[in-house]
Amino acid sequence: MLPFSRVAIIGLGLIGSSLARGLRAYLPTVRVTGHDANPEVRETARRIDLCDDVTDTAGAAVIDADLVVLCVPPGVMGAVAEAIRDDLSPDATLSEVASSQASIIAEIRKVLPEVALVPAHPVAGTENSGPEAGFATLFRNRWCILTPPQGTDPLAITRVEDLWKRLGANVEIMDAEHHDLVLAVTSHLPHLIAYTIVGTASDLENVTRSEVIKYSAGGFRDFTRIAASDPTMWRDVFLTNKDAVLEMLQRFSEDLSQLQRAIRWGDGDALFEHFNKTRAIRRSIIEQGQDDAAPDFGRQHQ
Amino acid sequence: MLPFSRVAIIGLGLIGSSLARGLRAYLPTVRVTGHDANPEVRETARRIDLCDDVTDTAGAAVIDADLVVLCVPPGVMGAVAEAIRDDLSPDATLSEVASSQASIIAEIRKVLPEVALVPAHPVAGTENSGPEAGFATLFRNRWCILTPPQGTDPLAITRVEDLWKRLGANVEIMDAEHHDLVLAVTSHLPHLIAYTIVGTASDLENVTRSEVIKYSAGGFRDFTRIAASDPTMWRDVFLTNKDAVLEMLQRFSEDLSQLQRAIRWGDGDALFEHFNKTRAIRRSIIEQGQDDAAPDFGRQHQ
Repeated sequence: MLPFSRVAIIGLGLIGSSLARGLRAYLPTVRVTGHDANPEVRETARRIDLCDDVTDTAGAAVIDADLVVLCVPPGVMGAVAEAIRDDLSPDATLSEVASSQASIIAEIRKVLPEVALVPAHPVAGTENSGPEAGFATLFRNRWCILTPPQGTDPLAITRVEDLWKRLGANVEIMDAEHHDLVLAVTSHLPHLIAYTIVGTASDLENVTRSEVIKYSAGGFRDFTRIAASDPTMWRDVFLTNKDAVLEMLQRFSEDLSQLQRAIRWGDGDALFEHFNKTRAIRRSIIEQGQDDAAPDFGRQHQ
Repeated sequence: MLPFSRVAIIGLGLIGSSLARGLRAYLPTVRVTGHDANPEVRETARRIDLCDDVTDTAGAAVIDADLVVLCVPPGVMGAVAEAIRDDLSPDATLSEVASSQASIIAEIRKVLPEVALVPAHPVAGTENSGPEAGFATLFRNRWCILTPPQGTDPLAITRVEDLWKRLGANVEIMDAEHHDLVLAVTSHLPHLIAYTIVGTASDLENVTRSEVIKYSAGGFRDFTRIAASDPTMWRDVFLTNKDAVLEMLQRFSEDLSQLQRAIRWGDGDALFEHFNKTRAIRRSIIEQGQDDAAPDFGRQHQ
């Protein structure tokens, strides 16, 4: 039995278009309707046949859907919830894929207090954006975290869980506040650090940008991938998960100060001890299938 | 004509063993002698036939070499120079591959003031260490920076340049101080940041290590690769390139504080502007062949 038969996807960027492709690949009898606020994106979506139908308004997309998934930047979730309110079926389940949840859930509940809301954040992505960046296998063997508010219809939760499992994801359920703290450290802080160091490196006056690029294989290039992610989405992530990000950033800064002090005072033992304990984590990430084991990210050396 | 006919490699880790393999693959008539201070590494090197000969002392390795390349951690370069002093031919060229150069050159010059010294730092590597981690193509299409001190015999410089080009590297010559500044930003700071954030993430009390690992695909895992690098080498890099690293770290911290402030005060425009300018750098790195274009580092999604 299909968890849902008519899915509307609002926002056809990397995640929305991957969801559309995944549905058509793994649940081909589900009818997929899409909408994006950007007319060029809608045009592209039609040209590449991303959905069964692409509508010109968000309302038209959701009108007979039994699942609506908002895949828009966190900052406009509330506005989009408002835009679909009048056309949303009272029996529909509403979901969204935001990378920060507590404040987004509150925004949506203000507009749609009665809706069955099952936020589902797939912890997966690439540095590419837009409707052509998506692919059906993006979510395979990745975790999708559901953060349904207290009191949500258990059947709606089970159906959303079923849908993500059919796309190949592992599903975990946790409360939104804890989700936001976990993501602050596994995703938001890394992006902030990567954006910062890439900015620092491009603004030097005694080392040229051309030198930074030429010698990036010394480690710098690893940071440039996630610093190429969508700026609108990431602006909104930091604005909507402020407290957790600031807490993690504070801890990071303290740890960095400690290493800075060890360098300044020539404390080799402290440096060695720190550098020696960080290897185990990568080993576990590879063992659990969340990264490839190939050295150097499997980069070509020929 | 071969640039050198008998090469001694002291230190058979990732770089030393890649150099040995590269020489045997691309300059098969060169005789390669190796030594490592660790008897287990020597044993492995013999077993996998890494060199034509593996000697039990550094002195025995260099005795008839016309090129000696020190591939040991920066912190023991001076001691190794001393260990080979009595056996080094007066006509031999000495090279080393340290990731920081000015202080290493000074150390070596104290012990061997007359030697033709041509440091050559290949900006290439993987997160793996040891004699079995090396491969012949590691240096292909990567940059190798020579930092010969003033007054070095130009013929020795040309020969070392020729050798690295035959291994597939592009060669650049610059002075040691500038090299150290460039590497501080393209390599040392990224490693320090990566080591820090991986440490921060493993020490939290409100997010478990298992959660960090499960949800690492949100960005964190990109940092774990270089934080799995050899701790001894990296301790020595930070101790020997202290001033340049501290300068770059200071700039990074200022930039991070600015973004932290923008988050705290909800300044979305400042965040967007910063995040929007960092995409161009990655594009250039890919265009110049210093990284692959495949999204998500070409990771498998099946």
